[in-house]
Amino acid sequence: MARIPIDPTELLRETIAALADPGCLLVSKGSDGTPNVMTIGWATFGVIWGLPICTVYVRHSRHTWKLLEQHGEFTVNVPAADLAQAAVTCGTLSGRDADKFAEAGLTPVPAAQVDVPIIDECVVHYECSVVHRTNVDPMHLAGSVLDGCYSKGDFHAIYHGHILGAQAHENARARLGG
Amino acid sequence: MARIPIDPTELLRETIAALADPGCLLVSKGSDGTPNVMTIGWATFGVIWGLPICTVYVRHSRHTWKLLEQHGEFTVNVPAADLAQAAVTCGTLSGRDADKFAEAGLTPVPAAQVDVPIIDECVVHYECSVVHRTNVDPMHLAGSVLDGCYSKGDFHAIYHGHILGAQAHENARARLGG
Repeated sequence: MARIPIDPTELLRETIAALADPGCLLVSKGSDGTPNVMTIGWATFGVIWGLPICTVYVRHSRHTWKLLEQHGEFTVNVPAADLAQAAVTCGTLSGRDADKFAEAGLTPVPAAQVDVPIIDECVVHYECSVVHRTNVDPMHLAGSVLDGCYSKGDFHAIYHGHILGAQAHENARARLGG
Repeated sequence: MARIPIDPTELLRETIAALADPGCLLVSKGSDGTPNVMTIGWATFGVIWGLPICTVYVRHSRHTWKLLEQHGEFTVNVPAADLAQAAVTCGTLSGRDADKFAEAGLTPVPAAQVDVPIIDECVVHYECSVVHRTNVDPMHLAGSVLDGCYSKGDFHAIYHGHILGAQAHENARARLGG
């Protein structure tokens, strides 16, 4: 199935639905050139600084955090429901210990705009270059969020990625139930 | 025209298009109870901390920043093209000096979920409670963005608003050209 370029907002509703279930797949690549993938349930999309932006949230303890600090590009890949088990696998293992692509049966293939792979089996892809990084500030966080998400600290870094390109499989909307 | 509750992602594509033209309208309200409105061209939408989130970016010099620090709720209102001049007015005047609602011919009316008004003449409304605030960090910002948006400093505060409710006029999609 061929991939075609899309406007970054074209499949946004389906992308945000996928964050909840089965999760989206964030790919990064460190300075040694080895890509890594993690499952994410959180992201936002929109416009900041006049740029199409995807923000992702990564705890400092994660292997992905280390890779993003080394190489400031990432891709967000949207799986259809048939990859639910792969999303679980990529959300459970750490890239420090395993080749999660192989474990999950996922294939990294070259992206069009960034030097980080996209995942061949996914149906929508956002290719991003980090233009800003800040951090969740526990001093200005609602108590309910602090208690619910940060009982052990380990606050998230917030990466603002400039969406340099987005592409989707021709039948992505149908595959995502849209 | 009746307003109906919507899923926060239902009109996201149209909302993000409106940010670019004619702009969306951010309403806040300080501790003295007087609401203010500013035009915004930047925002992101998605899911963080398991919550539907709208992030808005407000420079510390803005009257809206002061109001958001006093009362942590806001509404984002999406105008159709017929309010383009009102959006210009609300992007030019300061609420310190003028009642921008009156100047722009806009009517603040009670929201359903927050103690900050929505704007009657707009067609989509997001009602938000701030759950986190951080700041743009100039030490981790792309040079092109730093040069393009911050030649005078005055960096933006980043407000993460939990979208407590969203509503739209029955014909919102058509009014927004969707």
